[in-house]
Amino acid sequence: MHLATVAHGTGATGATGTSAAVLDGDIWRALPAADLSAFLAAGPAAVTLTGEVIDGAVPVLPLPAPRKVICCGLNYADHIRETGRELPAYPTLFTKYADSLTGPEADLVLPPGLQVDWEAELAVVVGTTLRRADRATALAGIAGYTVANDISVRDWQYRTLEWFQGKAWDASTPVGPVVVTPDEIDPAKGLEVICRVNGEQVQHDNTRTLVFDSADLLAYISTFTVLRPGDLVLTGTPGGIGAARKPQRFLADGDVVETEIPGIGRLRNTVRFTN
Amino acid sequence: MHLATVAHGTGATGATGTSAAVLDGDIWRALPAADLSAFLAAGPAAVTLTGEVIDGAVPVLPLPAPRKVICCGLNYADHIRETGRELPAYPTLFTKYADSLTGPEADLVLPPGLQVDWEAELAVVVGTTLRRADRATALAGIAGYTVANDISVRDWQYRTLEWFQGKAWDASTPVGPVVVTPDEIDPAKGLEVICRVNGEQVQHDNTRTLVFDSADLLAYISTFTVLRPGDLVLTGTPGGIGAARKPQRFLADGDVVETEIPGIGRLRNTVRFTN
Repeated sequence: MHLATVAHGTGATGATGTSAAVLDGDIWRALPAADLSAFLAAGPAAVTLTGEVIDGAVPVLPLPAPRKVICCGLNYADHIRETGRELPAYPTLFTKYADSLTGPEADLVLPPGLQVDWEAELAVVVGTTLRRADRATALAGIAGYTVANDISVRDWQYRTLEWFQGKAWDASTPVGPVVVTPDEIDPAKGLEVICRVNGEQVQHDNTRTLVFDSADLLAYISTFTVLRPGDLVLTGTPGGIGAARKPQRFLADGDVVETEIPGIGRLRNTVRFTN
Repeated sequence: MHLATVAHGTGATGATGTSAAVLDGDIWRALPAADLSAFLAAGPAAVTLTGEVIDGAVPVLPLPAPRKVICCGLNYADHIRETGRELPAYPTLFTKYADSLTGPEADLVLPPGLQVDWEAELAVVVGTTLRRADRATALAGIAGYTVANDISVRDWQYRTLEWFQGKAWDASTPVGPVVVTPDEIDPAKGLEVICRVNGEQVQHDNTRTLVFDSADLLAYISTFTVLRPGDLVLTGTPGGIGAARKPQRFLADGDVVETEIPGIGRLRNTVRFTN
């Protein structure tokens, strides 16, 4: 199934809003919550194709309110090698906020003068409460997969030892457009992860080559902090980031970043530098 | 003023619960919210001494629900030197969660076998929404100050480049017992920060020597992510941590960690290793 949070047009009351939704063929049907964060937080609910048809539905940020957004760095063998490092024994973890996220077609609005870089990633959506979960429990607790771009402000990321301040700029990490349930796709069997800038492919790898897969990451994180339905874990980016190129390449005002995982969907975001 | 979240005894309805509260002499009076997070989130409200007296009030974790808990590392000159580093041009920032926090007298329950270390810190409570705030705006946006111990799991902290996984163990960071408003204390003028383990003083410094003070940190963070009422910023720890001692010293089961800032109050937490 493909789940989303969709914006819908002006209704009888004159109100606009969003709804959690499920794709039924080529139409979106409502699920009983204002968004997918609220739908997942309400607890395990069967997704049925019996909800109201939403006319003019447009997928927006699927998960507007995760309590935890945890990212793994250095998780594709080739990207690790381009940063000059050895294959890791443990996942390198850092955080973003719900505030860091933005929609699948949203402009990426940042102040001018920053070194802004792309990082196409598979993101895992947590479906159940996980606390000191083993791999099997973690795997069974996955609600689905979505696409993210861990847009990174490199100059701030490397100002200090800790990457957080380059990773958590508000409304800079596009996510979506849909969450695909694990019965349809399996990253362990292989999903292509692609990033294009102004149409030029800059990253292309396969989730088969992840050092720590989705279940590994969820189980590991749940050792020290509880994960809850709707939390989001970004699994890391492949080789091809701008900062590792020679010469380095960063995003310019007006650049269009496309992030695609065939089988899930595509993000398309335009960079806008403005104060 | 001294603000807190207090637990109160069984009332007429048989219910126990918590309330935001303000100290009036030696009695606690209720403020109109279940805790200080909710009180601050409700927006600027005059704190009055007209609320109901709460009998048997016991301060608990003052801020149970901050959306952001951001910590600064390497912020006291002497602690920076003991880690072998230069004075920094930028604050080193990392994160915890609301889940990471626990009460001023709570046991610190962690699984056995970890290298658990102390870090006494002054914590700043955000009082207004801050977005790209300058220093003056940030200073005016401080709701108050409290005591925290950034308990750190050193072996996990240093498994990878990013400290997060050693810093965000659930219910491991005691905070409290009260939040003191800025009209009463000024960290820039100097507050002593003290840590004792089983009565032995292991850290003692003064907030005068912070490289980045409270207003610096809030202004800097608000450049990339919005801060909201009730958010918490930990300002870093002085020299004297266990990991920097020769030989290294970590907390043992049953150890009592006291964290004190005279003028605010004292945390007293016992380490309990259990699966």
